[in-house]
Formats: sequence, C-alpha cells, structure tokens
Amino acid sequence: MGNNDYEFKQCVEIPPPQPFLKSLASSIKETLFPDDPFRSLRNQPLSRKMVLGLQYFVPILDWLPRYTFGFFKADLVAGITIASLAVPQGISYAGLANLPPIIGLYSSFVPPLVYAMMGSSKDLAVGTIAVPSLLIGSMLGREVHPKENPYLYMQLAFTATFFAGVLQASLGLLRLGFIVDFLSHATIVGFMGGAATVVCLQQLKGILGLVHFSHSTDVVSVMKSIFSQTHQWRWESGVLGCCFLFFLFLTKYFSKKKKAFFWINAMAPLTSVILGSILVYFTHAENHGVQVIGYLKKGLNPLSASELTFGGPYLMTSIKTGIITGIIALAEGIAVGRSFAAFKNYHIDGNKEMLAFGMMNMVGSCTSCYLTAGPFSRTAVNFNAGCQSAVSNIVMATAVMITLLFLTPLFHYTPLVVLSSIIIAAMLGLIDYEAAIHLWKIDKFDFMICISAYVGVVFGSVEIGLIVAVAISLLRIVLSVARPRTFALGNIPNSMAYRSLNQYPAAQQVPGILILHVDAPIYFANAGYLRERISRWIDEQEDRLKCSSKTELQYIILDMTSVGSIDTSGINMLKELNRSLGTMCIKLVLANPGSEVMKKLHKSNLIDDICKEWMFLTVGEAVSACSFMLQSYKQKAKAIDTEVSDNNV
Amino acid sequence: MGNNDYEFKQCVEIPPPQPFLKSLASSIKETLFPDDPFRSLRNQPLSRKMVLGLQYFVPILDWLPRYTFGFFKADLVAGITIASLAVPQGISYAGLANLPPIIGLYSSFVPPLVYAMMGSSKDLAVGTIAVPSLLIGSMLGREVHPKENPYLYMQLAFTATFFAGVLQASLGLLRLGFIVDFLSHATIVGFMGGAATVVCLQQLKGILGLVHFSHSTDVVSVMKSIFSQTHQWRWESGVLGCCFLFFLFLTKYFSKKKKAFFWINAMAPLTSVILGSILVYFTHAENHGVQVIGYLKKGLNPLSASELTFGGPYLMTSIKTGIITGIIALAEGIAVGRSFAAFKNYHIDGNKEMLAFGMMNMVGSCTSCYLTAGPFSRTAVNFNAGCQSAVSNIVMATAVMITLLFLTPLFHYTPLVVLSSIIIAAMLGLIDYEAAIHLWKIDKFDFMICISAYVGVVFGSVEIGLIVAVAISLLRIVLSVARPRTFALGNIPNSMAYRSLNQYPAAQQVPGILILHVDAPIYFANAGYLRERISRWIDEQEDRLKCSSKTELQYIILDMTSVGSIDTSGINMLKELNRSLGTMCIKLVLANPGSEVMKKLHKSNLIDDICKEWMFLTVGEAVSACSFMLQSYKQKAKAIDTEVSDNNV
Repeated sequence: MGNNDYEFKQCVEIPPPQPFLKSLASSIKETLFPDDPFRSLRNQPLSRKMVLGLQYFVPILDWLPRYTFGFFKADLVAGITIASLAVPQGISYAGLANLPPIIGLYSSFVPPLVYAMMGSSKDLAVGTIAVPSLLIGSMLGREVHPKENPYLYMQLAFTATFFAGVLQASLGLLRLGFIVDFLSHATIVGFMGGAATVVCLQQLKGILGLVHFSHSTDVVSVMKSIFSQTHQWRWESGVLGCCFLFFLFLTKYFSKKKKAFFWINAMAPLTSVILGSILVYFTHAENHGVQVIGYLKKGLNPLSASELTFGGPYLMTSIKTGIITGIIALAEGIAVGRSFAAFKNYHIDGNKEMLAFGMMNMVGSCTSCYLTAGPFSRTAVNFNAGCQSAVSNIVMATAVMITLLFLTPLFHYTPLVVLSSIIIAAMLGLIDYEAAIHLWKIDKFDFMICISAYVGVVFGSVEIGLIVAVAISLLRIVLSVARPRTFALGNIPNSMAYRSLNQYPAAQQVPGILILHVDAPIYFANAGYLRERISRWIDEQEDRLKCSSKTELQYIILDMTSVGSIDTSGINMLKELNRSLGTMCIKLVLANPGSEVMKKLHKSNLIDDICKEWMFLTVGEAVSACSFMLQSYKQKAKAIDTEVSDNNV
Repeated sequence: MGNNDYEFKQCVEIPPPQPFLKSLASSIKETLFPDDPFRSLRNQPLSRKMVLGLQYFVPILDWLPRYTFGFFKADLVAGITIASLAVPQGISYAGLANLPPIIGLYSSFVPPLVYAMMGSSKDLAVGTIAVPSLLIGSMLGREVHPKENPYLYMQLAFTATFFAGVLQASLGLLRLGFIVDFLSHATIVGFMGGAATVVCLQQLKGILGLVHFSHSTDVVSVMKSIFSQTHQWRWESGVLGCCFLFFLFLTKYFSKKKKAFFWINAMAPLTSVILGSILVYFTHAENHGVQVIGYLKKGLNPLSASELTFGGPYLMTSIKTGIITGIIALAEGIAVGRSFAAFKNYHIDGNKEMLAFGMMNMVGSCTSCYLTAGPFSRTAVNFNAGCQSAVSNIVMATAVMITLLFLTPLFHYTPLVVLSSIIIAAMLGLIDYEAAIHLWKIDKFDFMICISAYVGVVFGSVEIGLIVAVAISLLRIVLSVARPRTFALGNIPNSMAYRSLNQYPAAQQVPGILILHVDAPIYFANAGYLRERISRWIDEQEDRLKCSSKTELQYIILDMTSVGSIDTSGINMLKELNRSLGTMCIKLVLANPGSEVMKKLHKSNLIDDICKEWMFLTVGEAVSACSFMLQSYKQKAKAIDTEVSDNNV
C-alpha cells in the first residue's frame, strides 16, 4: 500500500528523546510548581534575591513601605467594624467547640496579627470559624468530656490546633495546596449547608435553655434529645431568643436592601449582646432560667506552649481532629480569600496562604488560641467596610486587646441565648439553597455531590458527609477516564473541518470511512472499554451499510487530538485493534497523535505496525488520503471490469 | 466589537436540550452496557428472543449443534493432555491453600463441567490457581490453624469459595466488569511476579523437608524461618527436589525450542509424579525424611452444601477472603481468556465470563471444590494441544473422574517434594522480568506501578502489594485530570492546522494571539491549576513580547477540542478568567467547544459573557477573525495618525 501519488505537507513528528531525569524533573515542576513562584527571583543579585525571598514569605515587608494614611483611615473603620463582630462571634463559636468563652476572645487577638504579616489577602478577616469549631467539639467530646475534665479537654484542643497548623504549613511548603482543590465548589456548598443546619440545631439547646443535650450532631439524635425533655424547656429563654433572632434578621434585611447600611448588620451582634446583658442585669433573669456567660478573666492571652501534649492515649485523637479541622478551615479560608480577591482583581497564592494559616495556628496554639481561619461573614463585613489591606486585622486585634484588658467584666451578664441567636443568624446565611438550585440547573452530577454532602452531614456526621462527597467527586474523575465518550465525526460542508455528527447535524459522513474521536487518554482503565466500544461502532456502521448497500467500510480514522497520553495497556489495545481490524480488511489510520502518544508508539514499535504514512496531522488530510485510495481502487476495479467485458466482446 | 465584516461558514452549535431522564438513561447505558449485549435480540419474535437469551447465558446451546467430529478429535487430545497436568497441579495447589490433596482433584472435576456450559472462551482450561490458593492459605490460616482444626478450616475455605462465586456472578450480572480493568497490565505483571516469588519461597519448606514453617508470606519472615532451623534440613528431600526441578526445566527448554514438542512439557509433571512415586515405593524413602501424600479417598466429590457456614465468628474472614481471592481469580482468568481469544481472533464478553466463573465457584463450593479459574499454564498447554472448544474441559473432567474413581491409591507414595518442584517450575515462568523491562522502556510510570506491586507482595503481603499498585494506578488517572497539560499552538506553514509548538518545531506563533490547548475536562480538581497555569502562560508571553517589542498580546484562543466536559467549578474558573482578562484588555476566544461544554456554557449564561461570535468551529477560523480585528485596529490607528499629521501639516 504505497501512497506516493499523494503528497502531504507535514508528517506527524516524533518528539526527540529526552533524558529520563530531565523529563522527570519537568513533570514534577509542572505538578507541584505550576505557578513558578520564584520567577521574579531569576537573574537577580544575591542580596536582591534575599530581600525578594523574605518578601515572598512575609508579604507585609513588600506592601508596608507603600502604605499610605488614606489606606489607614479606611482600614481603621473596617477594623473597628469587624471587632464589633469578632467579640460576640468569638465567644459564641468557642461555645460550639465546648471551650471557655475567653478562649474565643484570645483567638481573635494573636492569629490576626500573624496573618497580617504573612497573609497575601487584603480582605480576609481572621477569626474563629463555626464548622471546625463544631467539629472540634464533637470529635474531642467523644473522647474527653468537656465539663468533667475541662483542663485535659483544653489541652487536647490546643494540641489539635497545633497539628492543624503543622498540617497547613507543611501542605503549603510541600506545594500540596492542590489537595484543597479536591473539595469542589459543589462539595463546599453542600457541606457548608449541612454544617450550618447542624450548628443551628445545636443552638436549640441555648434557645430552649436546656442543660443536657445529645453529643451526636445528626438531626435524628438532636430531635430525640429535644423532644424527650419537653418539660425542661424554659419559655423565658425561648422568648428572649426569638426576640433577638427577629432583631438580627431585621437588621440583615435592612443591610441587604441598601448597601450603605452594611454597618447595621455588622453592629447588630454587639448591640444584641449589650442589650441582652443590660436586660439580664436589671431583671436578674439569670435566676429565672436564662443562662449567662459568667465570670471572664481579665488580661491578655496566657502562654500555652506547655499545654501541648505529644503523647498519652489521646494523641491520635488530637492528630485526627487537627487534620480534619485543619483541612476544612483551609478550604473555607482559601475559598473566601479567592472570592474576594477575584472581586478586586488581585491574585492569591494558595500555597502561601496555607503557610500563613499554618503559622497563625501554630503560634495561636502556643498562646491559648484555638483553630482560626477566615470566616466568610467577617470577611464580607470587612470588604463592605472598605478595608484596604491586612492592617484592618491589626486594628481588630487591637480592639480585642482593649476588650481583654479592660472590658471583660461587662460580659458577665450576657445571656447565652443571645449568643445562640447570633450563631443561628450567621449560619442561616450559609445554607445557600440558591447555589444548590443553580447546580441542579447546570450540572446534575455536581448537584448530586452537593446533596450527598448535605445529607451525609445532617443525617450522619460531618466527617461522613465530607468523605462521601469527596469520594463521589473522585468517582466522577475516574469515570470520565474509565468511560470516555467516543463519537463519529463528519465533514462540515464547505470546509476541511470534521466535527461530531451529534453536535452538528449539518456534518456529513464520508462513505467507506468511519472517523472516531476518543475523548480521554487511553489508560488501563478504559482500554478494554474502548476496544469493545470501537468494535460496536464498526458493527453498527456495517449494519447501517448493509441496509443501504453503500460503499463497504474500509478505513477507520481515530482522531487522537484528545488522547493526551497512553500507557502500556493502551498500547496493547491499539495493537490488538490494529490486528483484528487487519483480519476484517479495515485499515487503521491515526489523525493528529500528540507528542506523548507518538513517543510511546515509537518506543513500542507500534508505529511500524500501523505505518507512519498512515498517521496524519489532521483528520482532513487522513480523509483525503483514504478517499484517494478508495477511488483509485474503484477505478482499478472498473478498469478490470471494462477489460473483462471488452474481452467478452 | 462587531465583526460583521467577516463571514463565517458555520457557527458552534448548542445541542438541543434533552429531558433529564433520557440523558440519565443514555449515560447509564454507555457506562454499564457499552457493548449493547442484547443488540441481536432486537426486532425478533418472542420465542426467538427466548432462545437467543438462553443461548446468551448458556453458550454451549449456541455452539454444540454446530460441533463436528473433527473438532472432537482435537479436543480429546487437548483434554487428555491438560488432565495429565491437572492431577499433579490440583494436588500441589491444594497444598498451597493448606487443604487436603483430594480437594484439589475434586476441584478439577465439577468446575470445568460448569464452565464448559457457560463460558465463552474456547481455550480456557479450568482449574485451581496458585496465587489465590496461597492467599486462601494465608488469610484463613491467620484465623484458624489448618492442622489443629482441619474441619473448620475446610468449611471456611468452601464458604470463601462460595462468596467469591457470588461476588463474581453479581459483578457479571450488575455489569460491573470494568472493576477488573482497574488491575492494569503493569499491576498484574508486578503482582504475579511477586506472588510467584512468594509461592516459590514457600516451596522451600517442601524441598528442604521442613515440618514447621512461617505463617507470614513476606520474604523476611520466610528467610528467618528457613535459616533458624538449618539443623532440620533433610538432604534426601533436597536432592530429590533438585533432580526433579532439573528434569522439569529440561523438558521446558526442549518444548520452547520446538513447538511440536509442547507435549513433553505438558506430560513432565505427571511423569515426575509417577517416577517419584515409584522411587519412593521401592526405596521406602518415606521413612528417611521424604514426606509423601499418603492415603487418598476413592470416589467422586461428596456434596458440601451443608458445610457452608453463614454465621459465627469467622463469617467476616470468609467474606473478605472470598472477595479478594475472587477478584484476583477473575482478573487472571479474564486476562488469560482475552489473550488467547485475541490469538484466534474471537471475542470474549467479560461480564459473561464473570457470570460463568461465579456459577462455577458457587456450584463448586457445594461439591467439595475450592476456588478455581483459568490458570495461564494449563490454558497455554490446552491452546498448544490444539483445543477447538470447551469440550476439552469436559474431556479433562472425565479423565479426572476416572482418576478419582479408580486411581487415587496410586498417589499414596507420591513425595511432596515432587509437588514442590512442579509448583516452582510453573511459578518461575510467571516472573516476567522481560515484561518489566519492556514497561521501563515504554512507560516509566507503569514500571513504577509494577515494581511497587512486586515489592509490596514480596516484602509486605499479597493484599498490601495489590492495594498499593491499585492506589498508584488510580493516582495516575486523578493526576492526569488534576494536572492536565496545556500547550501553546502555532500555525503549521502552508496549512490551516494549528499544532503544539513543542511537537512541531516548524509551527509558527501568530503575533498578538496566544493559542492554548487544554488537555483534559475542566473539573474542580484542575480549575484552580488551570487558572494559575494560564495566567503564567500570559505572563511569560508578555515577558517575551517586552524583550522583542512585537505586537501586544490582545487575544487568547482556548482550543477546547479536548475539553470533553466541564463542571460548575470549571464554569466559575472560565468566568473569572474572562473577567480578569477583560481588565487586562485581552479578549478570550473559544475554539471548538464540544457539545457538553456548549450546553453548560449556555445554561450558565457564560455564553453571553464571552459572546457567541467569539466561539469558533476551528482554531484556524478563530485566528483569522482575531487577525482581521487586529489589522483593522492597526489601520484605524494608522488612519488617525495620518489624520493627525495631516492636520499638523
């Protein structure tokens, strides 16, 4: 089968062989350093390199010299606004983690300072976060009772925070930030919604003034726990809770209506706390079933490095808690940072953020803070208040410091029910049912992931929901490779383009030639499938031809454009396919094999089996060559026919 | 930005919306029924459908009517040949599983008959297999000691076999055959090599005549066990073993040299058994440290359905053993069946094979047989002996039946060391170092998978090796999606084709336009990566332009040919990319988005953001349109320049 009569412009290239170590190094670089972080350091003198390197790890050195008084005015307003949110939220979320309220305040002092130096986001407001707080509460609570053994419990919480920080920092240093990418948008929507539901259900304890409560977080146990003790419900607490909830929703509604009123919403929690405390102080409601915070120690964070325990029977618990809460905090923090960076059109380096989060939690765990990250609500307020840089975090920390030094006694009479209302109001905003509807409209599979995460969290536990959602997400990736779509291509009239017959009804099939597009790398996971699917394509094509008695199928062109890579199972499959097509008198033709594929075809000698002349740069050229062969074959047949009939004559 | 001046031939089509249930049904069909098994049943009358359906599940009904005497002659020779291999192999492999030798003979009688009726391979010879036998021995041996509690041990072995059969049959019925595909060629090469090494090491017990031996299978424990009891080594046994090993290798060598002498190799095991037995009988070597098989019960398989235990403390052990050994047996059997089917160019239905294997093991477990599949060695002999159909299995079963009824006393004096030699000779053929070298040459990643499987099996355990290899294989798939390659395209001179600049040095970049090809579906796992990688492409391009002061970058064309699918995270990424490119005055242009992508772009309204006019069928058309805009822009700028200078004049 020579096709010397037909001339081609360019044959398919086999890339030159590369030394193994060089190609290994380049693929590691593409996998772990896709953003080439030290690009700007190249071709610089050593001293400049040092400065740039330091600025890379401590961004404040980079931007502080350019900081102006105008920026500071904006940051001051934003910082005070978020401080008014940070104090009640800190106290409330510490309650979710079953930690003393003061730990929540401590956690809003040191970590924001660390983040301000190392973080790369201009909008992120650092503080405690609801879902990981709840997780700490439920995971540690299973091992150590927070009421019976509060000191050990606190030690474990600090140790878990330390491990979370170590994990976050090492993920950042090892450039493994992409692990967070596996928590897809859909997973996060479902997971956050489920966690918010669970957190709200937990608040019924505070609203109804209950003392005993289920340790499980799933909806069934919580409902059982609530309705088994209806006689314990306190109406005073309930009424107070409902009033504050109404107040908080009202302020939210106003802020939503007019953007300029964002501060109403931001100030509402602090206002509620003040109103609630005054009310309790004057009515002595603490004696009538309304639980209050009680005594808070004055003074700054005590050191807690000596509380970290790296041994004993609970080490595995704190490591496990640290890993899970650390990853979730990271995912939330980075997602929040990225969203607001996208608004202002600057860029956040995920690996750098992880390092900052890790350092902040490691330092935090040594200064009586528990796990912190960038909560969405606080960051949104910060953004709306017009923050210009991480200095707003420093302002907030200063305000919290003043609170710690002088104002803690004021919180003595703050009723717990107000804190519950604040949490519920914040959490209901996280149940993003509109996003779920959007997912359903655009991508059913993503919707399924979202719903499984939600159901898993609400009816199982936070971990179950997370694992199920990640497993389904991974299944999607594996399925997309294991079951790649194949489709037949046809010629778009008046062009050399060949496109899917399904997508373009105008496309026309070429008689005698079947053009197939394969939509994934050919790996072990799909080699068997592709073999069967291609043979079904051929059978179906032949059935159709039988009915219409058109030209017999003589060529199969595989469009390899999307086959980015191939492994040995794939090579074997192509070999077998070529052989079995050979016995059916069908020629296998390849169009546009990529460099990886050509390399392996060459190494495995499959290139000689198929013949290099039967590989083309484009589908169009492949079709031209095949059509040319078909026609010359027909002409020969005709010539023989004529000869025979001539002889007969 | 209108481009009315430029006319396009065909715009990118959005596929018509499909009802959700219909698209769900079609994707389930493509996932689970890629081969459309009941294609031939369509448009047939009911009675014909019944017949075809029955023939589908019991293929013997299909081919037996066409069976000829010529075929039978060939099958008779092949059947007797494999029977001579089946008897010693059955006895030896039963020993690997710590089961009485007679069970091995039973297992070569009933299962081949079942397979002959239901199997779709013409060459597969059914029998016990080495690796799963070893696995049964080690997994059950951990829970129940086979010597101290032989009856319970046997019950567990039958129960495990039953569960293996249930698993295999249900995988076949549920069309989940593709699970076996996840054991890639590389995994199987490494795993089989490792298992063969482990099995050979175990045989040192028999060769050295040891009585006590390690229960672990890893090389360290086995070596410790051997060298800690050097004083127990029996030289009689060792010499006998070496002699037989030499004999077996010699026959193998002869058979390899001349294909016609295949029967020498096939008969060698039986010859060794006969010679060994005669030797022991006349020298009374059983009294001098040479262990023999001993008494074997005459008679056919007793029923064992009542021995299956579906409760008690060992249920989980038998289920786990059944699942792992069942999958490995399946993988080996199907791989073997497929390879030989490929030689003779017929087709094997994986799901149907699973059903046949499952039925054969379920029936087997009720008739005193343990796990069977299609061992490579026996099938190869069957193939070489010229078998024509599964009737050779029936002949073998008949021969084994005759052995069971009349000849068992002959095996009384068969020395165990001969069986060990037979196993070693068979196993060394499975260590396919040539395949491993081939893997290294073609695909380094596959080589790594192979070596991890080998090391895992030899130094850890069979399960560890398997899990590690499968995990690395899956990692490859996930990485191929999480880190897709992107490459810049250039124009191939004298054509409209645009190809990778790396692969085709002749390709030329178009000034002012960056054309990027993305090599995977855009999913959550790579959305973040692609965002960073594309922005790095732009930065690098702009750096290069700065040096050479060429036309500024104004257009980015994304070649979406290989982007088969996109999820909501991907859509968000494109949205952000479009927005951030907009602020940099760069226009995002899409070339050849597929139907799935167009559907989602349409649903998410991203199509309006990018403008449908900026989506093109081919990269060539996109480049033409962009170049046209660039030129008209330049001309306008020139015109203004001229005007200004005219005015100045």
